[in-house]
Amino acid sequence: MVNIAILGFGIVGGGVAEVLTQNPAAEKAAGKKINIKYILDKREFPDSPWNDRVVHDMDIILNDPDVSIVAEMMGGSHPAYEFTAACLKAGKSVVTSNKEVVANFGAELLALAEENNASYLFEASVGGGIPIIRPLRTSQSCDDIVEIDGILNGTTNYILTKMGSDGVSFDDALQEARKLGYAEANPSADVDGIDTQRKICILSAIAFGKLVPKSKIYTETMRNITVFDMQAANKLGYAVKLIGRAVKNNTGAYIFVAPHFVPKTNPLAYICDVYNGIIVKSNVTGEVMYYGKGAGRYPTAGAVVSDIVNIASGAEAAIPVQKWNLSENGFMSDIETYSCNRYIKIKNSLYFSDIFGECDYKKTQSDEIEFISQKISESDYKAKIENLKKAEPSAEIISHIRVL
Amino acid sequence: MVNIAILGFGIVGGGVAEVLTQNPAAEKAAGKKINIKYILDKREFPDSPWNDRVVHDMDIILNDPDVSIVAEMMGGSHPAYEFTAACLKAGKSVVTSNKEVVANFGAELLALAEENNASYLFEASVGGGIPIIRPLRTSQSCDDIVEIDGILNGTTNYILTKMGSDGVSFDDALQEARKLGYAEANPSADVDGIDTQRKICILSAIAFGKLVPKSKIYTETMRNITVFDMQAANKLGYAVKLIGRAVKNNTGAYIFVAPHFVPKTNPLAYICDVYNGIIVKSNVTGEVMYYGKGAGRYPTAGAVVSDIVNIASGAEAAIPVQKWNLSENGFMSDIETYSCNRYIKIKNSLYFSDIFGECDYKKTQSDEIEFISQKISESDYKAKIENLKKAEPSAEIISHIRVL
Repeated sequence: MVNIAILGFGIVGGGVAEVLTQNPAAEKAAGKKINIKYILDKREFPDSPWNDRVVHDMDIILNDPDVSIVAEMMGGSHPAYEFTAACLKAGKSVVTSNKEVVANFGAELLALAEENNASYLFEASVGGGIPIIRPLRTSQSCDDIVEIDGILNGTTNYILTKMGSDGVSFDDALQEARKLGYAEANPSADVDGIDTQRKICILSAIAFGKLVPKSKIYTETMRNITVFDMQAANKLGYAVKLIGRAVKNNTGAYIFVAPHFVPKTNPLAYICDVYNGIIVKSNVTGEVMYYGKGAGRYPTAGAVVSDIVNIASGAEAAIPVQKWNLSENGFMSDIETYSCNRYIKIKNSLYFSDIFGECDYKKTQSDEIEFISQKISESDYKAKIENLKKAEPSAEIISHIRVL
Repeated sequence: MVNIAILGFGIVGGGVAEVLTQNPAAEKAAGKKINIKYILDKREFPDSPWNDRVVHDMDIILNDPDVSIVAEMMGGSHPAYEFTAACLKAGKSVVTSNKEVVANFGAELLALAEENNASYLFEASVGGGIPIIRPLRTSQSCDDIVEIDGILNGTTNYILTKMGSDGVSFDDALQEARKLGYAEANPSADVDGIDTQRKICILSAIAFGKLVPKSKIYTETMRNITVFDMQAANKLGYAVKLIGRAVKNNTGAYIFVAPHFVPKTNPLAYICDVYNGIIVKSNVTGEVMYYGKGAGRYPTAGAVVSDIVNIASGAEAAIPVQKWNLSENGFMSDIETYSCNRYIKIKNSLYFSDIFGECDYKKTQSDEIEFISQKISESDYKAKIENLKKAEPSAEIISHIRVL
């Protein structure tokens, strides 16, 4: 038998308790009984069958040598980080769905886990129930991963899907997402790309072994995407998606988050609603995509339980410990040098083709043209726009969206 | 250090040797050196750096106690099955890409492996390089799997993609697939669904723990799909795909292979060319899709190597052994009772709506109608067609394709 503690008895924490007790497959896979000994929460749950396990003092868990696995589902960095570190120092393994803690403190917590002969696992931190982290570590373990492109946030993908299918504005689609419980009152973490940033931060650390400070990950909001952009994309053979990207190069990697025109030849173009899709490109396996619901009580709880099971069975102890170094200077390539095709829409310009060269320009209004540019870097793009504005002060950039 | 032997030094066998020696990640993940001690093949390879490992007598490998893992990539049932059984009896673990052996003898070989404290793994037997079998066993281990729908054969998916995009006939698309090396001179194993049958047989055994005789898996060829079917599908909001299905029900499961109209709301509709996609539906995780190249030297070799690595590292020993029972009578539900919507095209009929009831009938020629039927069982469908033919002997069924 293995004794576990659950920190945070909210949506996911409650789901973990349910999945563990209602799915006999979990204990079968673990090869032993999994007993929920404590649940840490500020609240009481008089109507819950687990209310007798609820405690309000973390020390009870830390000081109980019988507890060997702690599932942290509190959310937020503090005190989740402090509790995680304390558990690992006490030799207890920790599993979590808390992407904020993993993205902020993952390198340190993985090192702490190794020092104390414990595990720190976080399958549920990216892609909800989609198996992605363990497959990368075990099934793709002989691969050199060269690129990850992911639709990593269900809320924004729902909004973009709605805008595309119903022709509604960003604000109206956001309203709808709120009604359905997909978006928070303050949607910034989703629509400004912060959630996606955390997830690509974690995925690139797994792929490259380097944890980069989130502040260095260029992150662009999707608030500026309009219905007209969606229509242009569709007409030109693309879908608009918020993409977290990590692209390896000779010196390190580009890691960034931005809305993209995704060509309809790419399966990511068809990932709709709250679903997530993550494409992994590697030297042996080639291109693989992982797809599923990126959030939700049961999928996320299932991922947490799979981590618990893999520690309890002993399987985790047999696979190499993850080591993340903090990324040194020079690992992150400057986004200014990142080159790609770009969808551009310009108003009040006559000299656009002098600046952008041979492209398939299309008139959208009498005073408006749109086109997919040749492959140009960010700095090159900015220089061209500056030149254009010098030549034509009234010229106005309506849209600029990278092509995947 | 772990010593391995490779049986069959063809496309995949050679790829395994390359991936093992050229990708340091493999040994890092195994935590030890992996040494190729023997290569069994009838041929000599004077130009290969591994020619000094080549042997022609299986007994050399069986009698060498230093060899603990054998990678079988010979293809065909015999002598691959006999060699595999002999290795397992000698306490050597076996990994394979040979779907024929797994589908025919998997239950017996898994039991032999367990008896002799060895492992029998076959990640490469389904989906080439796509991680699917290990994720099902470790990441989705707390799940009750209720349905698997897979595009499991790259050759037929290439042919269907080509027919859909270029409007060419089955024969012309097959010709093209041959030119590109995707299809064999005798394409029956691919186009008649035999390869897909083996793979859904393996996947359903993993999901349900029962290995069903392949002869009981209803399997329909895709030779009869026409360009007109492709066009009708597209117009009505579907794509035509050859699908291997396993659907759990109260008494057992429906397991079968047939071309399907896949609605464009389903991500499988967008899996093109030689790619494979496998949707797994389960009670905790919900819907997950695994996607990637279903064949090819390196993806397949990578999957074989990942199995070797997981045995060498000790991870495999920590996860529950797979047990497949041979399916007893009554587990496989009769396909005659399987109910679904159906795309139907009928010629020379006036009374179709008396028989099929309320549907959205469309005239395609003066003497031809097409429609998506209500949900009806196979036997119900057959009875309706019989009634129709009785009423109108000249009526002719041009197409009948199940809707996913």
